[in-house]
Amino acid sequence: MEGEEEIGSPHLAPFVRANREKLRADVVVVSDGAMFAPQTPTLTYGLRGLCYLEVRLRGARRDLHSGAFGGVAPNPIQALGWLLARLKDEKTGRVLIPGFYEKVRPLPQEEKALWPSLDEEALKRELGVEVLPGEEGYSPLERLWARPTLDPNGVWGGYQGEGSKTVIPAEAGMKLSMRLAPDQDPEEVADLAEAYLKAVCPPGYTLEVLRLHGGRPVLTDPFSPPMRLMARALEEVWGRPPVYAREGGTIPVVAELQETLGAPIVLLGLGLPDDNLHAPNEKLDLVNLEKGVAAIRRFHGLLAEELSPGPAGSP
Amino acid sequence: MEGEEEIGSPHLAPFVRANREKLRADVVVVSDGAMFAPQTPTLTYGLRGLCYLEVRLRGARRDLHSGAFGGVAPNPIQALGWLLARLKDEKTGRVLIPGFYEKVRPLPQEEKALWPSLDEEALKRELGVEVLPGEEGYSPLERLWARPTLDPNGVWGGYQGEGSKTVIPAEAGMKLSMRLAPDQDPEEVADLAEAYLKAVCPPGYTLEVLRLHGGRPVLTDPFSPPMRLMARALEEVWGRPPVYAREGGTIPVVAELQETLGAPIVLLGLGLPDDNLHAPNEKLDLVNLEKGVAAIRRFHGLLAEELSPGPAGSP
Repeated sequence: MEGEEEIGSPHLAPFVRANREKLRADVVVVSDGAMFAPQTPTLTYGLRGLCYLEVRLRGARRDLHSGAFGGVAPNPIQALGWLLARLKDEKTGRVLIPGFYEKVRPLPQEEKALWPSLDEEALKRELGVEVLPGEEGYSPLERLWARPTLDPNGVWGGYQGEGSKTVIPAEAGMKLSMRLAPDQDPEEVADLAEAYLKAVCPPGYTLEVLRLHGGRPVLTDPFSPPMRLMARALEEVWGRPPVYAREGGTIPVVAELQETLGAPIVLLGLGLPDDNLHAPNEKLDLVNLEKGVAAIRRFHGLLAEELSPGPAGSP
Repeated sequence: MEGEEEIGSPHLAPFVRANREKLRADVVVVSDGAMFAPQTPTLTYGLRGLCYLEVRLRGARRDLHSGAFGGVAPNPIQALGWLLARLKDEKTGRVLIPGFYEKVRPLPQEEKALWPSLDEEALKRELGVEVLPGEEGYSPLERLWARPTLDPNGVWGGYQGEGSKTVIPAEAGMKLSMRLAPDQDPEEVADLAEAYLKAVCPPGYTLEVLRLHGGRPVLTDPFSPPMRLMARALEEVWGRPPVYAREGGTIPVVAELQETLGAPIVLLGLGLPDDNLHAPNEKLDLVNLEKGVAAIRRFHGLLAEELSPGPAGSP
């Protein structure tokens, strides 16, 4: 049991590395993640990585009054705006950090053929939007599963209360995260982003970049022997074969377990797209919990048969 | 006595209009504002106006997880960045709202000659900056006194706490103010800004503009009869003649008093540039308080002599 996932599991990877021998396994099953849709058993064979930064900008030594100093004072909120516009192109939705896309592995046509189809209209209704903005030239599902993205996740500076205050703040900041596609590396991407931010930061501002969190992307064989066993277990429990999916989220420990233990990974997501991950009203469907338990039990039975040297059931 | 200046004096103008006859006066003295420098008695003959807006942007119906939706979700923080970059040019410092500069009265060369000179190096040291960013083609003092500016005064959205949270927020917002030069009108400028923001708002976002506060710019005759009397009073009290200055701040009630009462205005600022207006550690120099009281007493004496039909002192 490990309870640090929401803060990036900082102790799990060192623990796994320190206990590599004790943790030797035939297969690693991770049931974080989501089903593609309700009633749709899903095997996930790919995850995006994550590079999460905090950007702090400082202008003058202290907060200034916009009447007394407006016209000569640096404004870190304005500068954050210029930086955001330089990070992502408004027209194409492309990330503008030089080299950002260089290592992204292209998506083979045959892999796309494996994917279920996304109901874009249902997604729009769910989100309450009329368009699904994103990188030009790629379908929504490609953008969610196989393309990297950049999103500011928080911004602050100056006066945020009711009414008006004519302050030019000394400081402003933002949280900035990038979801990474195979084979991008979070540290390399952080280096690229930091160098670029420093290069395009307007004169008169002090820029600080903090690296808060990272995780490598994962791509596994959807048809490895244990994945085939889990597919059988899911079909028996749900009465229908699973779909094969990638996922847009990040589970940093999966890359870590794959590399440290060298065992094949089975990613069995039991959540649903509307579970409101990380939001105040996060939930888990009880049907998925029950069928998930049943599938994992059945998988262990099938695995025992497969690994057993004699006929099933022999001592 | 009126105590609403920090929130824009919403009740003062209606009061003045309702009591126009009772308030009839030979001259209106307003001692809000600042001296140009310590030990420098100052008569102010111009003020900038103000147009203060709040801009709210909404994307999806609810906050979203950047792993599950990054690549298809609108991001109002990113969109605020694009809007900020479209409001002010990073290279030239010019406001990009069409028509924004149209009504700005050009500054006559002879008026500039009247101004004291600004110690730019001292200002940089005071602010702790190496450059004084602002509109290309104008001196810092022109940018502070006679040119309009635009500054975001606050910004918010998403996660602002410690550490990382991979949220794509449903909403983000900012406070946005413009200091106005004679003869810009706050309502007209608000119309221009709102129309422009709506025109350049990227698709997929709902934009709302609230008008929080406004004030008209003021320009008076630096050598009107009461200004000449106040200049004499200041010279007697300080032992040196005053300098003539405009000010970058806004005192909405001045335009209101000027228009409603039709009396000449005398603007006698007694604050100092480092008084930290509106900041938590705002102060007032006691020397300026004492000499200010003395100058205003002397001004009343001189005014009584001037207005008296007979020789001074006669009943």
